[in-house]
Amino acid sequence: MYHSLPLKDIQITDPFFTGRIDTARNIAIPYMWETLNDRVPGVAPSHCIENFQIAAGLKEGEFHGFWFQDTDLWKWIEGVAYSLATHPDAELEKTVDEAIDLAGKAQQEDGYLDTYYIIKGLDKRFTNLRDNHEMYVAGHMFEAAVAYYEATGKRKLLDMACRVADCFDANFGPEEYKLHGYPGHEEIELGLAKLYRVTGEKRYILLAKYFLDVRGHQPHYYDAESKARGEVRPAWGHLRYPQAPYTYNQAHKPVREQAEGAGHAVRQLYLLSGMADVGEMADDPTLVEAANTVFQNIIHKQMYITGGVGSTHEGEAFSFNYDLPPERCYTETCASIALAMTASRLNRIQPNSCYGDTVERTLYNGILSGVSLDGTKYFYINPLEVWPDRCLRRQDMAVDPERMGWFGCACCPPNVLRTLTGLGSYMYAADEDSLLVDQYIASKVKADVAGQQVAFTLDANFPWCGSVKITMDSAATFKLMLRKPYWAKTCTLTVNGETIEAPVENGYIVLDRAFAAGDVIALDMPMETRFMSASVRTPNYAGKTALMRGPVVYCLEEKDNGDLLWNLSVKPGEAKAEHHPELLCGVTTITCQGQREAAESDLYTEEAPAAQDVELTFVPYYAWGNRGKGEMSVWVRRS
Amino acid sequence: MYHSLPLKDIQITDPFFTGRIDTARNIAIPYMWETLNDRVPGVAPSHCIENFQIAAGLKEGEFHGFWFQDTDLWKWIEGVAYSLATHPDAELEKTVDEAIDLAGKAQQEDGYLDTYYIIKGLDKRFTNLRDNHEMYVAGHMFEAAVAYYEATGKRKLLDMACRVADCFDANFGPEEYKLHGYPGHEEIELGLAKLYRVTGEKRYILLAKYFLDVRGHQPHYYDAESKARGEVRPAWGHLRYPQAPYTYNQAHKPVREQAEGAGHAVRQLYLLSGMADVGEMADDPTLVEAANTVFQNIIHKQMYITGGVGSTHEGEAFSFNYDLPPERCYTETCASIALAMTASRLNRIQPNSCYGDTVERTLYNGILSGVSLDGTKYFYINPLEVWPDRCLRRQDMAVDPERMGWFGCACCPPNVLRTLTGLGSYMYAADEDSLLVDQYIASKVKADVAGQQVAFTLDANFPWCGSVKITMDSAATFKLMLRKPYWAKTCTLTVNGETIEAPVENGYIVLDRAFAAGDVIALDMPMETRFMSASVRTPNYAGKTALMRGPVVYCLEEKDNGDLLWNLSVKPGEAKAEHHPELLCGVTTITCQGQREAAESDLYTEEAPAAQDVELTFVPYYAWGNRGKGEMSVWVRRS
Repeated sequence: MYHSLPLKDIQITDPFFTGRIDTARNIAIPYMWETLNDRVPGVAPSHCIENFQIAAGLKEGEFHGFWFQDTDLWKWIEGVAYSLATHPDAELEKTVDEAIDLAGKAQQEDGYLDTYYIIKGLDKRFTNLRDNHEMYVAGHMFEAAVAYYEATGKRKLLDMACRVADCFDANFGPEEYKLHGYPGHEEIELGLAKLYRVTGEKRYILLAKYFLDVRGHQPHYYDAESKARGEVRPAWGHLRYPQAPYTYNQAHKPVREQAEGAGHAVRQLYLLSGMADVGEMADDPTLVEAANTVFQNIIHKQMYITGGVGSTHEGEAFSFNYDLPPERCYTETCASIALAMTASRLNRIQPNSCYGDTVERTLYNGILSGVSLDGTKYFYINPLEVWPDRCLRRQDMAVDPERMGWFGCACCPPNVLRTLTGLGSYMYAADEDSLLVDQYIASKVKADVAGQQVAFTLDANFPWCGSVKITMDSAATFKLMLRKPYWAKTCTLTVNGETIEAPVENGYIVLDRAFAAGDVIALDMPMETRFMSASVRTPNYAGKTALMRGPVVYCLEEKDNGDLLWNLSVKPGEAKAEHHPELLCGVTTITCQGQREAAESDLYTEEAPAAQDVELTFVPYYAWGNRGKGEMSVWVRRS
Repeated sequence: MYHSLPLKDIQITDPFFTGRIDTARNIAIPYMWETLNDRVPGVAPSHCIENFQIAAGLKEGEFHGFWFQDTDLWKWIEGVAYSLATHPDAELEKTVDEAIDLAGKAQQEDGYLDTYYIIKGLDKRFTNLRDNHEMYVAGHMFEAAVAYYEATGKRKLLDMACRVADCFDANFGPEEYKLHGYPGHEEIELGLAKLYRVTGEKRYILLAKYFLDVRGHQPHYYDAESKARGEVRPAWGHLRYPQAPYTYNQAHKPVREQAEGAGHAVRQLYLLSGMADVGEMADDPTLVEAANTVFQNIIHKQMYITGGVGSTHEGEAFSFNYDLPPERCYTETCASIALAMTASRLNRIQPNSCYGDTVERTLYNGILSGVSLDGTKYFYINPLEVWPDRCLRRQDMAVDPERMGWFGCACCPPNVLRTLTGLGSYMYAADEDSLLVDQYIASKVKADVAGQQVAFTLDANFPWCGSVKITMDSAATFKLMLRKPYWAKTCTLTVNGETIEAPVENGYIVLDRAFAAGDVIALDMPMETRFMSASVRTPNYAGKTALMRGPVVYCLEEKDNGDLLWNLSVKPGEAKAEHHPELLCGVTTITCQGQREAAESDLYTEEAPAAQDVELTFVPYYAWGNRGKGEMSVWVRRS
């Protein structure tokens, strides 16, 4: 079993990511704090802090916002904690401490802490697990508490979290006198696993396992719960899955029998993350296996080329295998993050490059596309094709053609925050005798491997250049395992200038040796423009190609190529990659030859439109939409 | 001004249509009567006749169905009347008479007749013109009454209709003491025009003109009406058109200022039909001109190649210029019928082949596709591309992959019925000195032209063969005007075997001469397979072609070409047309060369999928979906 390296032991020096992480730290963290306090003019009030004030008895008023509004604070604290781990900031820490103190005042005698029910009436708590997210809120609190404890050593929030967990443990479990329910929105499972990891309290991992074990069994808990509430109308999710109720919540059958990504995408992937954690920590390989089965279904049959998942706006959900429409996707930023979370957990259990490949795919494409280059605007949905007129003038389109400042349901912004400030957790993992290098993000690293202090410096210029250099800063004997990306056709490894034929195991290049201080391990993986095709089982992409270079998916934008993008086709073959340090915060563009059909005609004509040769300019997909509103397309016809 | 020839003077002998009309007469008419009486097992009860019984005081009970449920009866009577005009049927007439007697018992003292308000409370009548369809119901009653009077000479329903019209006239109009409202669903305008035509009662056409004149003016009648009802929530249509409320009802501005097809498609086209009728009969060319402006916008920028209109399910509506997605269209059968209705009216005012072309396009494609070959199943939506999995498994799809037996909102089936039984009205038109031949549907015809009895026989085998032969059965001197279809590249005209160079005026070939009995006018318009393209302004169709032959649009079906149709591409050029009398009730298929990409691969692969040569079989679009559920596509990639 591998573990991520502590964030404080990874100093990220990466030219691509440091600016983004700095923006998250310097712009997003204070901006979000202001929104939580309803102090940003022109932004709909969050009421998050106010809800805590009311729940704590410090203020009079009603609860406002979603029933999971508390998570805005917890996710913010988690993101802040990851930042504090590498960049201590006494003033920021003070702000967090005050927020924790406030939340502490709201916590109930028995540990319960959810401002929605505290304000609305505690008699109603635990009566609608299906819809009302109490366990989801708790899970995010646990993540925040563990992150803050690990970053600062402060126990207050961790202790509060344990009391919340104890409250759930007192109320849920196999015992006759307890409730036998489980969350409608998964998250508490992975939260409890983190709590178990730092506290060693076995009840926590057993409770998480209980939630997974009872999930989806008949007679159905949600049916009973719904009946007890006197509910008459069918559940929202039922309408969408008449054949298999509760598919929306991944509760249509027991989790070990589920084989395909289904229902709400973020829930599905938080569930898989929890299954991986709990399976490993509670020593139940059947959970890990089941999680991996669904994960493999997703990446092989339900994932967009950008690492986006969720093919339909209805239920923010998976639809079915090979249904991947580019214009009507959901591909929520949070879902890509959750896919990376799942991949990273499965990799720590049974390392395979497919997991790091997936993290890399989401990171450089479907996650980063969720935030504007200046770090202040966000996409909830990350479409692969946009005709702004259609987005704005058709009522059946959910896609926004431009990023927005904040959302009523503000899940994506803090999720991006914690992903960027916690980036280190995706980069490396270690076990007793080996160290995995999963993401080639330049950094200085310290790690305990095989009882030795290992220190090294990784130099790289991803995603623009495939040359990676690792310089050992200390001597050590261990297995260095370097992920061989799926896109690397050739991969040349040298140690101190000498070419090495190293074995590849599960997609990792393995260097098992005694390293001396000063040893230089260089990996050269030429990045070429690749003209990708989609499986013939997938409609929408037949006859089309999507350009990739290294891990980066490219797209055409109206800004560079004029409007009516659908009239463009590209000639696969020659492509010129060129780096533009000034463009879009520095991107490598791709230009290649193509054609444009431009002749005006009647609506329907017997004349096939004549095509003219044109030069096409592709920019990285993650950077689209940063130069005003316009058309965009990832997939382009082959000419 | 031209007029249609009376239906009784047109004996349709057409090999393509006679079977369909017979099916409508022998299957649909009795079937629909049974559904109106709730006697079809397995079909949701219509309650239509029952509502009349309750309104007449013959039965106790509540109103059931839509607020426009009465129109099911009126549209059925209209369709039956057209059938009776050419095929007298005493028993059927007796059934209609009984239905009319029943409705007569429900009619109120002041002429009002709408079972919804009679049962629910007459105090509420005329309080929600925007939503509740009272005038729409009346319009359909007027159409039924005129049709039945013209077919049978019986006045009872006509007199009832006049009393209904008198009631509206007593309550609506410019006078201070009257209501100044107008219908949310247009239809009464064209109904009143018909009533005026047969009764000569000038008040009726003036009332229709009033409804058009006040439509969309500010302060807005619907706003005042809504306020008077104490309505709090914004109107349904408002949510869809926040920038221009009442666009859904074509009441966002005065009708003479409207320039583009907008809002609910059927309403839009019933409005245009009414504007054409009223403009002509009330001698207001500005109404005709405005109707034509919108009509031209529709056929040039908002019409599917099949003659379908309505690009979005939301509001069953037009979306915007060039937005014509093939899979997410609405293209309601009724909307294509309404497009033909509008075209036919405009043509009678200012003949131009564009109108007959449009009637022909809808007739052989988007209208006929609405009904199964056996005449018992119907499409509401007529998609141009179907992947059944997507229709069935995505909640955001409105398209059904298969025709259904009956609808709760059963507007399309009787609309198809009246179109088929009243087909003659689209075929010919005459004025003082000329006769237009608009549709080449084989028939024996009598007409009064230029004070003479003209009789002729038209032989044709449309839509499979472009040879038309007109044999004069009497001598007469007049202008015979033959529509030159847009698809006819060459058009050879002979009279008694001698080739004639006749002038073409407004798209009509004009033969102005003295015809002798026995004269044979032959028009030869070779039908070739045409590989159509769409304007570069339209997305979805770039790089694709749709096959047409004569007026018929073709499609690929899974049944003939295997599944995953999107992997097929067609090589424009050689095409073999072959008639199959046994297939799909007799169709000409087209086979041509193409390619299929079939290699299985990963979801995303660098390998462009290899293509194999295949022969593709295209069938007429209207006939699709008659051999079980499967994929279908009109537009196909060019290889």
